[in-house]
Amino acid sequence: MEQYNYLLSLCVILMSTKIFSIISRRAQLPQVVGALAAGLFFGPAVLGALTQSFFGIKFCLMPSPLLSRLAELGVIVIMFTAGMETNIQDLRASGKAGFVVALTGVLVPLGMGAGLMYLFEPGVAMTSAIFVGAVLTATSVSITVETLKELGCMSTKSGNTILAAALIDDILGLICLTVITGMAGEKVNLTLVFMKILGFVGFVVIMGLIFYSFMTWSDRSQGSKNLRRYPVMGFALCLFMAWAAETVFGIADIIGAFAAGMIIALSPKGNYIASKFDTIAYLLLTPVFFANIGLEVTIPSMSLNLLLFTLALVVVSVISKLGGCGLGAKLCGLNMHQSYQIGMGMVCRGEVALIVADKGLEMNVINESYMGPIIIMIIICTIITPIFLKDAFKGDKSKEYGISDQFALSDKLDEVTESMLDAETSIYTLLKSRSHE
Amino acid sequence: MEQYNYLLSLCVILMSTKIFSIISRRAQLPQVVGALAAGLFFGPAVLGALTQSFFGIKFCLMPSPLLSRLAELGVIVIMFTAGMETNIQDLRASGKAGFVVALTGVLVPLGMGAGLMYLFEPGVAMTSAIFVGAVLTATSVSITVETLKELGCMSTKSGNTILAAALIDDILGLICLTVITGMAGEKVNLTLVFMKILGFVGFVVIMGLIFYSFMTWSDRSQGSKNLRRYPVMGFALCLFMAWAAETVFGIADIIGAFAAGMIIALSPKGNYIASKFDTIAYLLLTPVFFANIGLEVTIPSMSLNLLLFTLALVVVSVISKLGGCGLGAKLCGLNMHQSYQIGMGMVCRGEVALIVADKGLEMNVINESYMGPIIIMIIICTIITPIFLKDAFKGDKSKEYGISDQFALSDKLDEVTESMLDAETSIYTLLKSRSHE
Repeated sequence: MEQYNYLLSLCVILMSTKIFSIISRRAQLPQVVGALAAGLFFGPAVLGALTQSFFGIKFCLMPSPLLSRLAELGVIVIMFTAGMETNIQDLRASGKAGFVVALTGVLVPLGMGAGLMYLFEPGVAMTSAIFVGAVLTATSVSITVETLKELGCMSTKSGNTILAAALIDDILGLICLTVITGMAGEKVNLTLVFMKILGFVGFVVIMGLIFYSFMTWSDRSQGSKNLRRYPVMGFALCLFMAWAAETVFGIADIIGAFAAGMIIALSPKGNYIASKFDTIAYLLLTPVFFANIGLEVTIPSMSLNLLLFTLALVVVSVISKLGGCGLGAKLCGLNMHQSYQIGMGMVCRGEVALIVADKGLEMNVINESYMGPIIIMIIICTIITPIFLKDAFKGDKSKEYGISDQFALSDKLDEVTESMLDAETSIYTLLKSRSHE
Repeated sequence: MEQYNYLLSLCVILMSTKIFSIISRRAQLPQVVGALAAGLFFGPAVLGALTQSFFGIKFCLMPSPLLSRLAELGVIVIMFTAGMETNIQDLRASGKAGFVVALTGVLVPLGMGAGLMYLFEPGVAMTSAIFVGAVLTATSVSITVETLKELGCMSTKSGNTILAAALIDDILGLICLTVITGMAGEKVNLTLVFMKILGFVGFVVIMGLIFYSFMTWSDRSQGSKNLRRYPVMGFALCLFMAWAAETVFGIADIIGAFAAGMIIALSPKGNYIASKFDTIAYLLLTPVFFANIGLEVTIPSMSLNLLLFTLALVVVSVISKLGGCGLGAKLCGLNMHQSYQIGMGMVCRGEVALIVADKGLEMNVINESYMGPIIIMIIICTIITPIFLKDAFKGDKSKEYGISDQFALSDKLDEVTESMLDAETSIYTLLKSRSHE
């Protein structure tokens, strides 16, 4: 009977992440918070500990090889999707403000995060310190967008700068991660690391050219027929590049997946391919990813020292982003109010921070005991951002058209699909009833 | 590096099943043949054996725990989808002809298949013999539909009868499987088996009522907002019922998934939910399922005796379906020509036969060495059906409107989605360029 338990685990994960997400949305919080909380609650940390102390048996969801593999696939698909949403032309259009904000917003948290580690663990390895810094660098695009969308402030000058900065921020964070994973792999040999990164860039360009030519040729000869092959080919590209990044170039697999996503965004049928991954992500892989992170947390290992570290990490993560990004915005000539809005909008952390931390854990660069503090930091950052943003944007609304509107498309599409299906069913029922007459 | 090989395996599976499917479609064969062949070719049976004899190392895709778990999930999703496509009202409308054809088309192959086993292995356990019979019972709906669609004969009297019979056939085949798995589980206790089946039916009715009320309530209060929760809830229902069927009622998990699908087909938003599983199936789970079956075949174990068995199995599978269904059609008053058409249309075997065989293997009721013959039988049946059907339907075309047209809807939808995305992107680009002016 044991062998069928994965079915029940998946069922509980799907139900609980969805229900917790709905609850956190009702509470005006990003849904990520709910999804993470679901894993924490049904995992060994809460339900496991509770049932053990009350009934003497551990009755909870447990981490399993299948779940962690699916979670890995989940990360790859999340990063692949993020890559597909990164439109290079839009980034160029939104100018240097976004880039400067992103750059200072990466460098300040990186430095402060590493500094914090040296403070708490003097003599820690440099790669470990930088890794904790890297965890603090990545703003969560999805959380920022969702918050701004709810506030109706996506198209203000601040909103557009936040969006552009968050996208560039992801790429900078990944470059960080690339360099660090390259360095942590073997004895530090910077020349070799940069050779490998250069090789990877060449590989991306070549794969991009091959895929682009193939898609252009296929698009011309097939048009809108046999559409299923495109998402399949896209996914195969993603898996291949993730594998190659890791095994051939010694770079994180998620960076390969992200690069594959950017290639697809530039190819014909890119939008169609992107629309298909939405489903596979929210229907299976993303819930498993979030829940799995919660499952791997064990609360009892939190010492007083670690609690202090958690508190310091939260403070540093908020201040470094707010200060770093605000500074960048000020340097670009935005006023004080706008700089505060932008800084506050970038405080959100999410998937990418978790992914980086997870990567560090896997590479034995981050100690397992730090996962608890990091998750708590992410949850607190995602909880406070919408609250402070709401206040910061009070009264600011504009109707300018910008990159923000792209994100509204995919939401609409779902609704249209549904009404179309309804209409087709009615027509079908009608025709059938006539043919019976 | 080993730990990242699953990415490459998945990439090869996606690419090869797709390319082989396209090739088999070009050759006027059902795509299932190609998908199966891909696993056979890249697995130990062909590529593994070839590389070993030429280079001394086995260089091929290998079965792995992750792949087989994903394949299991794949079967569950395939059966869940089949359940969602089974519309009880349509079945009732197409009358008793479909039912009689399905019934004789199940009983004759069941008897002849079991007889064949007794002939080749005198003294074989009764459950094993019946299991081989059960493998022969299930006509593949998808293959039949695809063949008839290509021929443009879906709406003839014969075409409609075939479709109805194929759907009922699936259900009868599953009832067979339910009884057999129930019997094989422990010492045969028919009363207990029927009690469990009765319990399961009650469970399905209760789950159906709960889910239906929930969906009706949610549909009324939410309308077309927050659509994502429905597919998630549907999948959770499927996983829960699959788990419960197996662990609580001792019935195959796939029957639980099929029942969950039928419940969803009757609920509000059923069409929307069904449309979402298409993607997850063809993008990940179905290719892995087909390829995995091919991967598990090892040709060298085929003795002369087994080759003879293969030949006999092929002959029995064709004759028993053709004869059984033809007989049923004749009993319902159709003419000789129509009875032949119907019989021939039902010869196709596919997913369900494989699923039943796989189940038998897992339960140690079917010997591993019989998997090769069964796969060859399925491939041959799917290859000859379109060829003979083409001949049988020569000149028969009609424009009657029937249950057949439902299957064309989902194909259309993909194309519409794509052109809509294109249109929205153009509008977006246009608006953006204007706002920049």
